[in-house]
Amino acid sequence: MKKTLLPLAIAAIATTAQAGTVTTDGADIKLSTKGGLKAATADGEASVQLGGRIQWDYDATEARDDNIDREDLDIRRARLFVAGHYGDWAYKAQFNIAESDGAEGGDAEDLYVRYTGFGKLANITVGKQKEPFGLEELTSSKDISLLERSAVTELYAPGRNGGIQVHGNGANWTYGVGFFEAGGDGSDDFSDTAMTGRVTFAPVKSDDMVVHLGASYTTRDADIDSDPATTEEIDAYNLELALVTGPFHAQAEYFDAEESTEIADVDSDGYYVQAGWILTGETRPYKDGIFKRVKPAADKGAWEVVLRYESGFAQYSDVGLNTVEGEQAALGVNYYANENVRLGLSYMSGEEDVTGSEGDEFRARLQFAF
Amino acid sequence: MKKTLLPLAIAAIATTAQAGTVTTDGADIKLSTKGGLKAATADGEASVQLGGRIQWDYDATEARDDNIDREDLDIRRARLFVAGHYGDWAYKAQFNIAESDGAEGGDAEDLYVRYTGFGKLANITVGKQKEPFGLEELTSSKDISLLERSAVTELYAPGRNGGIQVHGNGANWTYGVGFFEAGGDGSDDFSDTAMTGRVTFAPVKSDDMVVHLGASYTTRDADIDSDPATTEEIDAYNLELALVTGPFHAQAEYFDAEESTEIADVDSDGYYVQAGWILTGETRPYKDGIFKRVKPAADKGAWEVVLRYESGFAQYSDVGLNTVEGEQAALGVNYYANENVRLGLSYMSGEEDVTGSEGDEFRARLQFAF
Amino acid sequence: MKKTLLPLAIAAIATTAQAGTVTTDGADIKLSTKGGLKAATADGEASVQLGGRIQWDYDATEARDDNIDREDLDIRRARLFVAGHYGDWAYKAQFNIAESDGAEGGDAEDLYVRYTGFGKLANITVGKQKEPFGLEELTSSKDISLLERSAVTELYAPGRNGGIQVHGNGANWTYGVGFFEAGGDGSDDFSDTAMTGRVTFAPVKSDDMVVHLGASYTTRDADIDSDPATTEEIDAYNLELALVTGPFHAQAEYFDAEESTEIADVDSDGYYVQAGWILTGETRPYKDGIFKRVKPAADKGAWEVVLRYESGFAQYSDVGLNTVEGEQAALGVNYYANENVRLGLSYMSGEEDVTGSEGDEFRARLQFAF
Repeated sequence: MKKTLLPLAIAAIATTAQAGTVTTDGADIKLSTKGGLKAATADGEASVQLGGRIQWDYDATEARDDNIDREDLDIRRARLFVAGHYGDWAYKAQFNIAESDGAEGGDAEDLYVRYTGFGKLANITVGKQKEPFGLEELTSSKDISLLERSAVTELYAPGRNGGIQVHGNGANWTYGVGFFEAGGDGSDDFSDTAMTGRVTFAPVKSDDMVVHLGASYTTRDADIDSDPATTEEIDAYNLELALVTGPFHAQAEYFDAEESTEIADVDSDGYYVQAGWILTGETRPYKDGIFKRVKPAADKGAWEVVLRYESGFAQYSDVGLNTVEGEQAALGVNYYANENVRLGLSYMSGEEDVTGSEGDEFRARLQFAF
Repeated sequence: MKKTLLPLAIAAIATTAQAGTVTTDGADIKLSTKGGLKAATADGEASVQLGGRIQWDYDATEARDDNIDREDLDIRRARLFVAGHYGDWAYKAQFNIAESDGAEGGDAEDLYVRYTGFGKLANITVGKQKEPFGLEELTSSKDISLLERSAVTELYAPGRNGGIQVHGNGANWTYGVGFFEAGGDGSDDFSDTAMTGRVTFAPVKSDDMVVHLGASYTTRDADIDSDPATTEEIDAYNLELALVTGPFHAQAEYFDAEESTEIADVDSDGYYVQAGWILTGETRPYKDGIFKRVKPAADKGAWEVVLRYESGFAQYSDVGLNTVEGEQAALGVNYYANENVRLGLSYMSGEEDVTGSEGDEFRARLQFAF
Repeated sequence: MKKTLLPLAIAAIATTAQAGTVTTDGADIKLSTKGGLKAATADGEASVQLGGRIQWDYDATEARDDNIDREDLDIRRARLFVAGHYGDWAYKAQFNIAESDGAEGGDAEDLYVRYTGFGKLANITVGKQKEPFGLEELTSSKDISLLERSAVTELYAPGRNGGIQVHGNGANWTYGVGFFEAGGDGSDDFSDTAMTGRVTFAPVKSDDMVVHLGASYTTRDADIDSDPATTEEIDAYNLELALVTGPFHAQAEYFDAEESTEIADVDSDGYYVQAGWILTGETRPYKDGIFKRVKPAADKGAWEVVLRYESGFAQYSDVGLNTVEGEQAALGVNYYANENVRLGLSYMSGEEDVTGSEGDEFRARLQFAF
């Protein structure tokens, strides 16, 4: 190092001395903000993150036979979370401020403690979390390609419940298996239980190409013996296939469930296929068996078009139809303004197979995830 | 720079080395706390803020004819918020922990995403926010001069609703105009709608003198055609005048509304005038068409006395009266202990014009805003 | 200082220059994270803290006569808080995300503003806070030795209410006395009031030895005169004794209450005794009249066994019994994995004195406090 650098170095110190300093009593800390806040010690011992998401939607739904014709400007999801870790233990506490689907302000979404001391191959998560079932379900609502998940995923995938899960991943595979309280957190009894598991494998996985295979299974017991017509057990599985090559991505899931009562068994199934093209050339990120949100490469943002077709038994509630055998098609356009902001449009149209009832929905969303 | 500074410089480095360092992986960050937390990148690209307010009130209300005589020690408002921005996009998520006026823990107050890319002349805010109507309404409940807003403001100003607003400001003027869901966020349908706008102009605006003029207008449609006595439309406007000169400040608003049903139109109006004197000599801050909280100049804090008189059609609920033609006077004393803490006392007395019923309220508040 | 240190010093500057800097516009700030976040100015003028707790419980309860036999995996407590201070004023806003005992997401726990300008001898706290009554009640639910407090504490100690308290402490003594709204925050009227006070004294207090004496008293008025059988007044007191010597700790409390109605007075009492041994040799921390959580000395964590016996009038709800004269014994094992994480097991068994009904509970907890 040359002597001539010394004055510069001292000038730098002088500048820092005019502003107040920020230091720690212990390990060095890295701080960052992109609208939220992250702090992590340089030695990896501890971290904390404050974040959340706001999704404002305009939607217009029309169902021709049921005389449904409504418009709404409403919050779709508003959540805050605090997450962090200390030593081998981590936590996440995420709650709603507002939600359009029944959750009230203050209600918990993710709410768990995780042990990471066995390494990436075997984490243990205790608490309210997503059951390991379904590619589209496990992809965050911030990151899915269309504004709403397919009706078949909504019907078959269990979503969040309280439980204990063992999960891990290698370079191109993941697994998760857990025991959950099927009636959801808050129920007084643990007798409604579920065992749920999922495995994924990516035989091809590079920066711009992915082949993803996955399968999930859940078996759910309802401990009710009074009414013979009541569901006593549900067994469901799914199969997942996804492909990414450069700006193109596609994914498909098949679901099959068998509901048992004392007097009969009911079998149902459904599937969706989806394809997307990122016009600005970015590649849809894939990590640990799920997809992430498109990250624009340039300041101008990224544009994406998405198509989805689904068919089978489902609750087509977005387009105003009931739980029926039917089919639905969706077209979406997304603009990713930056890493945190997404504007999306989607048009969905559905039809019941037996009655021929039809419905459609136009939806626009402004999303800030931090 | 002299060589003799070197040992000092190195000593400074040594000190910093004993404490852990705090750095970032990207842009430089400025951090600050005055009980809340702010972090902002030096390049202006991103920021985050964690803040809130706690207001604890003792109030004693007596309404002579209705035999109301109650005392209460209760939280008036307790809110937390996270706000931030990244690039041209900003957000605010503010929620109640407790509130005395019906909101429950977890309920949203501000909950919006804002686009700032067009500059200060045209911001676009989407989400739950205050409709641009009324000087006293738009001045934060942390910053109003008396502990409670006038009854006429409470009746005529729409307050927070979900919607989309375009707003901006120049050196001494502001405007805002938006389209809102009149029934409030959470209603299933968008058919109750409002258009609301406000303009303000300050022909005089210096550090210790302000003349403020403002006007707001709102038109609100209720899409209900079953009951002919139901309100179908409300049109309301207000006019604002405010003056600041040194430690003195005064403001007045006039409100006028016309409610239409199928069978009749009802016109009503009301006004308040308010004057305040900051005994310790500070000037009430004014910025972008609204007032801010008095900031004490000395460690001893700042003292203020405030008077308000109002008359007209309003819901005089603080003093135990109904929605009637009436009048109310209020006297307040405030002590601003520091930038964040305010102690306030107010006495309000009201009377119904027709029945002559009278009521009064004494209120004391301890407020910490961070 | 030797010249040879210069290149090192400059190298340190160079490294810091590659990473972004974190500075302040005002006073120096110390930042720290152990899963939560703390920032405090070096001059002591301001601070902010973001923290919380997550407690996930598995519990199995069996009550032999009532045919209760239930298992549950449920959140016991999930809370977030923001606390801070600026100048002589401090605040804390803590709210539930979920709770098993009736509180809903978003509901307030601690919610107060505190004046600290008179020094440690006389703080004034206004808002929702724990009334100063009972050693076990005032010890945080994160820090108590068994997973649940004794049934007698749960019955006799008032817990959190809105009010105003004066409290302080010296080197080995504390006091607190306050006026509270007995019906809890949120009630419309202030007529149900309580006066509550507590004093503690530690004649012996060193790093590994403590003798603690305490006494509390509360008198509570219910302003209801309609029903002569309704409780009109409750007066209760408690006496506390606690001992710590090295890894051993013990505590006992006696409670006595008199409930008055127009037609009769009812007197009841109860007590518990508890003893614990920290197998790994740490000493249970004691500060300002209450106990804190065991802090493991080594990376392997700390182990503790605890026994408790209680007898008297109480609501033995954890083991499925009613509010009765009875007795209950509890055995617990705790593993403190690090400063923030605690795993605990407890077994409780209770019996009603008159009917001889019996119940027991097994409980396991995973706790992350940050």
